[in-house]
Amino acid sequence: MPSFSTSPVPQPLYLQIADAVAKLIADGVLRPGEKTPSLRAVCDQHGVSMSTAVQAFVELETRGLVEPRHKSGFFVKQPAKARLDLPGPPRFPMAGSLGNMHASLFDAVFSGNVIALGGAVPSADILPTVKLNRMLAEKARHAGERGVMYDLPPGSDALRRQISKRMMKGGAVVAPSEIITTCGATEALMLCLRAVTQPGDVVAVESPTYFGILHVLETLGLRVLEIPTDPVSGMKIDALEKVLKKQRVNACLVLPAFSNPLGASMPDEAKQKLVMLLKAHEIPLIEDDVFGELHFGPKRGKTCKSFDDSGLVLFCSSFSKTLAPGYRVGWAIPGRFYHAARMAKLTHTLATPTLPELAIAGFLAEAGYDHWLRSVRKIYKDNVTRMRKAILEHFPAGTTVTSPQGGFLLWVTMPPKVNALELYERALAKGISIAPGHLFSLEQRYTNCLRISCGERWSPRLDAAIRTLGRLAGR
Amino acid sequence: MPSFSTSPVPQPLYLQIADAVAKLIADGVLRPGEKTPSLRAVCDQHGVSMSTAVQAFVELETRGLVEPRHKSGFFVKQPAKARLDLPGPPRFPMAGSLGNMHASLFDAVFSGNVIALGGAVPSADILPTVKLNRMLAEKARHAGERGVMYDLPPGSDALRRQISKRMMKGGAVVAPSEIITTCGATEALMLCLRAVTQPGDVVAVESPTYFGILHVLETLGLRVLEIPTDPVSGMKIDALEKVLKKQRVNACLVLPAFSNPLGASMPDEAKQKLVMLLKAHEIPLIEDDVFGELHFGPKRGKTCKSFDDSGLVLFCSSFSKTLAPGYRVGWAIPGRFYHAARMAKLTHTLATPTLPELAIAGFLAEAGYDHWLRSVRKIYKDNVTRMRKAILEHFPAGTTVTSPQGGFLLWVTMPPKVNALELYERALAKGISIAPGHLFSLEQRYTNCLRISCGERWSPRLDAAIRTLGRLAGR
Repeated sequence: MPSFSTSPVPQPLYLQIADAVAKLIADGVLRPGEKTPSLRAVCDQHGVSMSTAVQAFVELETRGLVEPRHKSGFFVKQPAKARLDLPGPPRFPMAGSLGNMHASLFDAVFSGNVIALGGAVPSADILPTVKLNRMLAEKARHAGERGVMYDLPPGSDALRRQISKRMMKGGAVVAPSEIITTCGATEALMLCLRAVTQPGDVVAVESPTYFGILHVLETLGLRVLEIPTDPVSGMKIDALEKVLKKQRVNACLVLPAFSNPLGASMPDEAKQKLVMLLKAHEIPLIEDDVFGELHFGPKRGKTCKSFDDSGLVLFCSSFSKTLAPGYRVGWAIPGRFYHAARMAKLTHTLATPTLPELAIAGFLAEAGYDHWLRSVRKIYKDNVTRMRKAILEHFPAGTTVTSPQGGFLLWVTMPPKVNALELYERALAKGISIAPGHLFSLEQRYTNCLRISCGERWSPRLDAAIRTLGRLAGR
Repeated sequence: MPSFSTSPVPQPLYLQIADAVAKLIADGVLRPGEKTPSLRAVCDQHGVSMSTAVQAFVELETRGLVEPRHKSGFFVKQPAKARLDLPGPPRFPMAGSLGNMHASLFDAVFSGNVIALGGAVPSADILPTVKLNRMLAEKARHAGERGVMYDLPPGSDALRRQISKRMMKGGAVVAPSEIITTCGATEALMLCLRAVTQPGDVVAVESPTYFGILHVLETLGLRVLEIPTDPVSGMKIDALEKVLKKQRVNACLVLPAFSNPLGASMPDEAKQKLVMLLKAHEIPLIEDDVFGELHFGPKRGKTCKSFDDSGLVLFCSSFSKTLAPGYRVGWAIPGRFYHAARMAKLTHTLATPTLPELAIAGFLAEAGYDHWLRSVRKIYKDNVTRMRKAILEHFPAGTTVTSPQGGFLLWVTMPPKVNALELYERALAKGISIAPGHLFSLEQRYTNCLRISCGERWSPRLDAAIRTLGRLAGR
């Protein structure tokens, strides 16, 4: 970070200014054809005389970086060779802490140059992009002053009313006043965890579980307790029960509906049993339901929240899997921890962005969300079925794949000798991103496993990618 | 949180369903004139027979809550007396922890029924509401798939380029690749603090300082060290220097430009001295510049970041004071802590909302931001001058008021016998919110002080409010 005033080797002022402008050009802040700051502005900003400013621009002209235009000032010249793109963020190695691996995976998934099987993100062409953006445009045009002002926690009334109606579909009667809107489910989880835990506390999670959750727990200084989890029916409640007899657990965080990464669905009776078990121990249950609406069967299962008669269930979800990840709209229903979660929001982001909230509320109220969900569930079901078939066909003998009843994630278990981290690197070299099993546990349990996203419509391109992955895994 | 399946006193199923629907009506989820869920939907959701569902609706009709319409199902009836509003969030008492007081103040400020002198928020009629919302609408219409997708950290290229140009005005040459966009300055501060501290660390701050900062520090388990601060020239660097000789400080968090609440402006030489002092001790400096663009004089001061040649300065700001608090767009320039801050963002909110980012970038690039800033600075200067005069006129003899050279906050010191918390309660009863001095220190230092916001255009209404406050303070 250079600075004008503290350069270790003092240079003439005009050279310091020329270097600063040259850096702006090199960094792409000033682009070819753009006007540079005026001589007057340079004088003011750096407290130098007009002659020093002129000297700096003569220097820049000499270096071939700017050109004067008659009566208009200086402009950035087109470089002789094509301008390089902005330098991207530095690559994180896929190694070290979970946070590092999380960042590394996201760099790979979202670099735009890969077949992105490593994220748990719907592809944009599946989402109701046009309708949603149009709704946001309409809300922005008509919101007036309200659109630019804070929508402080608990957030938009209109949205909370719509969420309250949707919660009914999972069997939970929740008043709008019990809901807090959030910047996505990530913030909802963070607020709920902050409401019920202190650093050093123990949180029971499914194993394997979503690396984003493990990263959040690490960030908050919480200890992770991995509970065995069935790929069909979710967290093993008898295993949890045994653990609770032996040690203190301060909270339990579960994805009962189409879990990440297993795609497991906990049966309603098991959910009720889980809620009752934790109630008996006075342990808060954080329920992450981001995939809950994406069931392949005709009916939505009940939520754990629907069995909650003591306020110990903290429900978290978002519209990132069903409508628009980039709008950053989610919610928390923190039960008896409402007060603490709402306070936590004040230090976290202060408020959820107003207009995206209103757009989502409008979409739910007027744009046929249920109709749209019915069609998108079919697409995901089709994606999952075809992807599963292709994996079983092309991966080495002995490979097994989960068979989820909702969501869009597959968990692939390869023969024990295959190292998923090596496969990750080799696949990335071929332009394919996957999520290696290493990320889903702190205990190196899933080194021969992968999570594959089916968030993109099936195509020959995906078929070819799975063939390539299968070949690489078979080496 | 009632539930169908675990009611302590088992009721007939039809009564449970009727109660649940009645609650939805009472909570305002289902509003007068709206269609209720259909009989078929009720059967599906609760797993009951059609006759049970019918019985539930007969019960609701008997209670006068719904009415059948021919061939259209049941509708919520208009209540005999006017419908009550949605219950608001519970009021927090202005007492107890700082978080509690923070929440209580915000409840008061943003209830919509008060003259809001207690927030540090520009009033919407001062902001370029129409132009901004139009820009957002335009971006939403043209963004296509990009608009609904994640814009993962570091965030929008277009916005980071614009921010890089603006940083030049404060004398700092910062490449777009050094910037991370955030959900407002609150998130930026949180990410920077998480990047440079561990729970239990000591952070030096101005005294008095913004309660939002004290709340964030409390949340992160950090210890606060309050450094004496001059109302004109900001944190006393010699006082800080003495402290650093005696005890370990892990980070320093300062608002050098028009601080909150004092409105102090640190002279450029003092900024440089502060940066050098902290560099000598290898202590990260977090610079909060949210008011930096709102100078009353002709020139913007330099930022501490402009004196940073070691990457130890972490710069935070937002567009919440100048454009749109509700868009939630801010940024961090974490210097050598870039990697850690970017990782922290992944667990915090994952990404900044895409379209608000693009709208702000578009406003900066095309909508005459500088021109607009020039006009808004005049408004704030006028507001501050008039408010200051009115306070000196109407408050008890012995009252002093700061005379800031930018921003829109005034710090009022009343005679020692006046208790600001009592005044807060009495003022609120008269429909006026203020920020009592108790909030700006953990050490009960400012119990006879107030922060008054001048974010609203001067008017007879404000004049009357100040008269009332003065009278209440004089009792």
